[in-house]
Amino acid sequence: MKGNSESNLKIIPLGGLEQIGMNITAFEYEDSIVVVDCGLSFPEDDMLGIDLVIPDITYLKENIQKVKGFVITHGHEDHIGALPYVLKQINVPIYATKLTIGLIENKLKEHNLLRTTKRKTIKFGQSINLGKFRIEFIKTNHSIQDASALAIYSPAGTVIHTGDFKVDYTPVFGDAIDLQRFAEIGRKGVLALMCDSTNAERPGFTMSERTVGKTFDNIFADHKDTRIIIATFASNVDRVQQIINSAYKFGRKVVVEGRSMVNVITTASELGYLNIPDKTLIDIDQMKNYPDNQMVLVTTGSQGESMAALSRMAASIHRKVTIKPGDTIIFSSNPIPGNEKAVSKVINELSAKGADVIFQDVHVSGHACQEEIKLIYSLVHPKYALPVHGEYRHLKAQAKLAESLGIPKDHIFIMSSGDVMELNQNEAKITGKVQTGAVFVDGLGVGDVGNIVLRDRQHLSEEGIMIVVLTLEKHSNQLLAGPDIVSRGFVYVRESEDLMGEARITVEDALDECLRRRVTDWGKLKTVIKDSLGDFLWKKTKRRPMILPIIMEA
Amino acid sequence: MKGNSESNLKIIPLGGLEQIGMNITAFEYEDSIVVVDCGLSFPEDDMLGIDLVIPDITYLKENIQKVKGFVITHGHEDHIGALPYVLKQINVPIYATKLTIGLIENKLKEHNLLRTTKRKTIKFGQSINLGKFRIEFIKTNHSIQDASALAIYSPAGTVIHTGDFKVDYTPVFGDAIDLQRFAEIGRKGVLALMCDSTNAERPGFTMSERTVGKTFDNIFADHKDTRIIIATFASNVDRVQQIINSAYKFGRKVVVEGRSMVNVITTASELGYLNIPDKTLIDIDQMKNYPDNQMVLVTTGSQGESMAALSRMAASIHRKVTIKPGDTIIFSSNPIPGNEKAVSKVINELSAKGADVIFQDVHVSGHACQEEIKLIYSLVHPKYALPVHGEYRHLKAQAKLAESLGIPKDHIFIMSSGDVMELNQNEAKITGKVQTGAVFVDGLGVGDVGNIVLRDRQHLSEEGIMIVVLTLEKHSNQLLAGPDIVSRGFVYVRESEDLMGEARITVEDALDECLRRRVTDWGKLKTVIKDSLGDFLWKKTKRRPMILPIIMEA
Repeated sequence: MKGNSESNLKIIPLGGLEQIGMNITAFEYEDSIVVVDCGLSFPEDDMLGIDLVIPDITYLKENIQKVKGFVITHGHEDHIGALPYVLKQINVPIYATKLTIGLIENKLKEHNLLRTTKRKTIKFGQSINLGKFRIEFIKTNHSIQDASALAIYSPAGTVIHTGDFKVDYTPVFGDAIDLQRFAEIGRKGVLALMCDSTNAERPGFTMSERTVGKTFDNIFADHKDTRIIIATFASNVDRVQQIINSAYKFGRKVVVEGRSMVNVITTASELGYLNIPDKTLIDIDQMKNYPDNQMVLVTTGSQGESMAALSRMAASIHRKVTIKPGDTIIFSSNPIPGNEKAVSKVINELSAKGADVIFQDVHVSGHACQEEIKLIYSLVHPKYALPVHGEYRHLKAQAKLAESLGIPKDHIFIMSSGDVMELNQNEAKITGKVQTGAVFVDGLGVGDVGNIVLRDRQHLSEEGIMIVVLTLEKHSNQLLAGPDIVSRGFVYVRESEDLMGEARITVEDALDECLRRRVTDWGKLKTVIKDSLGDFLWKKTKRRPMILPIIMEA
Repeated sequence: MKGNSESNLKIIPLGGLEQIGMNITAFEYEDSIVVVDCGLSFPEDDMLGIDLVIPDITYLKENIQKVKGFVITHGHEDHIGALPYVLKQINVPIYATKLTIGLIENKLKEHNLLRTTKRKTIKFGQSINLGKFRIEFIKTNHSIQDASALAIYSPAGTVIHTGDFKVDYTPVFGDAIDLQRFAEIGRKGVLALMCDSTNAERPGFTMSERTVGKTFDNIFADHKDTRIIIATFASNVDRVQQIINSAYKFGRKVVVEGRSMVNVITTASELGYLNIPDKTLIDIDQMKNYPDNQMVLVTTGSQGESMAALSRMAASIHRKVTIKPGDTIIFSSNPIPGNEKAVSKVINELSAKGADVIFQDVHVSGHACQEEIKLIYSLVHPKYALPVHGEYRHLKAQAKLAESLGIPKDHIFIMSSGDVMELNQNEAKITGKVQTGAVFVDGLGVGDVGNIVLRDRQHLSEEGIMIVVLTLEKHSNQLLAGPDIVSRGFVYVRESEDLMGEARITVEDALDECLRRRVTDWGKLKTVIKDSLGDFLWKKTKRRPMILPIIMEA
């Protein structure tokens, strides 16, 4: 890299890209670091017993004197969810638009951080100076309001980060994306574009959110005689607005159910992002006062989440809502990859209760498709392309789009978590790697469940455990008690009792042999127990439970 | 029910319908039972450590003197996979078409049942008499060759069971579905139609398998310079035939990789269902003798199965194939619901290795869409409709189609596993319920892993286990050794050592208290250990590991 690396801009993804969900990227120039977003991720199938995954921010802690603050693009969990955990480690200010700040404050309240956290609401078009950086917030559209792209100005050049976005010329609330501003900044010269890749594999243009409103009107017109239940994402305030509009138009009352949805809607309506006609919203307990054909229930659970309201209704364990034959139930959502089976299960349960379930074409994405991505590239005209937000396949798809628009292949970078990208007007290069990774949050514990524990859980979950306990006499090493064998998660019926008897004899024989030979090292004894019992069980059952020998001394 | 129930036809699903995958249905008339299909199912996410799921055939065992044999519609796992396990319990003959018998014989060989199992190959149009039943095999189309619908003639009336089918007017191999025969039987009067519901939610018509061949030709033409790797279902012989055709046309050699695919292709080609031009198929070890642009590799793993060939290539653990930048990799399949994430993982890994991955529109379904289902109903004109093969939502969708075609609502039945449906020309009714269910196969063990073991595994997998061992002196009940605490799958870092120390003190205190009060009952001691340690851990960590106290006597 030419020049003093101090005078380059560094971009360091600390969680995102590979690790879908945890969007957090550090921008560093000399003595200043600004961090864009601070998201969490939900556990993969093999992270047994883990509740949340948050980013490892070692790099920020080590450079805490440089960190000027968090700049947040919008209020989705994968962009704000890790804030409460991270702020406990580094207490720096937060900058975001109004609704985003409102949603962050809900989290800070829950974690008792409201008093100690500095935060500032920024308007679109406004800039803030953070050390060597100036950050400008640019209006975009997304499946949550107040979503923002960022122009990140540094002495080394300007980076545009789109955040999560789509182009909606007719948004339900507020203005369309500020394409003119993208163009204006582009005209002045942009060093790098970091653009949302989620839908980079999809051709065409994402439909306007407003089209879903029309669909609701049609469904409401077709189902005038039944109760209507609509499941959607808790944070999609515009979607809820459109449900309220259709309800009002067709003379129905609206009930909102599901904790996260009530939270978001309360915040959005307090801040003026939701317009609810008088007496349209009623409490769930008032529902019984209205006939079915005057009710709309808006609920969480569109992803089949087992604890969400709709799943509980489907499983007949919801306290206040019972699904009835004839209910019209709308999934205003598409399953996020990985949730297909859970969603299908809920649809089956609802159908089996006689409900009429509508789940096709009542949703539009919040992310830009190929034509929109091309539009942004054409307005911004960046020197370097750094696709963000998506699995590798999606980043790759955007890289292909960038190439098709004439950006040279060696100006396009697919970064990995921890990569240090250094850029200036002449060059861009990955020059190093910092520590990053996933920190598991399990119950109240942050970071204390590691890979060994996960591997153990995996083993236990597949094969169970067999515990061998015995007591040896101090000094003489004579067997005082045991070996006793106890199992959990292992076979337990029919021949099992014999199996345990034989297993005990196997271990006894192996132990006798050891003690006869005066092997008294506990490590060796444990190995002998593991090996002899392991072989025996494999031969008899073709299974390999975890074997845990415990030796005591009396 | 009017009349003597002995003179009604009984239809009893023993595994299918609710339990997707396990297709097995008993048809009973007086002293005769014929069983259609005998499939297995793969475990759900919460069946930890389970390899396979097979049906509970208690009902067949209890009525073994009536059971005349299995009639199998086609050679897919969800229709033949449980045969080896079930034949060990009831040894009755098998009737099926040629390729189906060939694939069953592979299984019988593996399980050493070839010598003891009677089986008979049936031709399309041919009938067999089984007790009071006559069964006719009718040619259909599906994603495996030799798929058959069944006309099941009984003194109470005729039932048509479609098996899994689609309408393919231009199949790759053999004839189109015998629509004339459906019409002819329909004209004579059909009591009930049991029709495939898999795609009953999808409008339109399923495309011909032959269209995929054209797509292959196009892709081969566009990628003349690279190696081509194609993943598809092991059993889709027509798909493999079309890959071979394109390879031959473009001067490429074909390697087949993946155990299940090699098995099916060997059987299919021995029986004449696959036409391979001379010297086209080569062994994987010969691959090195040909340049990349003269190679096509056909492989398993299109569903992201972690042990399948393509997944191993993606993870760089395949012994013979290394993915190279520039490789063209085609997923000729759609993810089966539940596999989306696994497939996406493989696509990401392959993309990251620089391969060009094509996964859209290189597949057609093997199941009938709405227009085909309507066609069959219109030809057969059944009195009763009993939708089969699908999740509840799919059965319901077919029920709606049937209704739209004029079948009265009370002539349409969505059956559950174990339901006994009795029919005659005047009436159809669910009159009882027999024992059915899922039997888990784990390693070599069949049925010995029950719900308690599964629950334990779930608990272990989420929270881990904490074992408390202690040795008491016989008679005196004095503490000779312990309490020692050992954990697995639980927290292990940082404060954990202190935690274990404190946990030990907690248990000691509780034990002292007991022994002081002369509580010596082991059950009570264990409860005290569980409660005191459980409370302590919950307070400290908000976790509830399984707690397993073990008391020994010396």
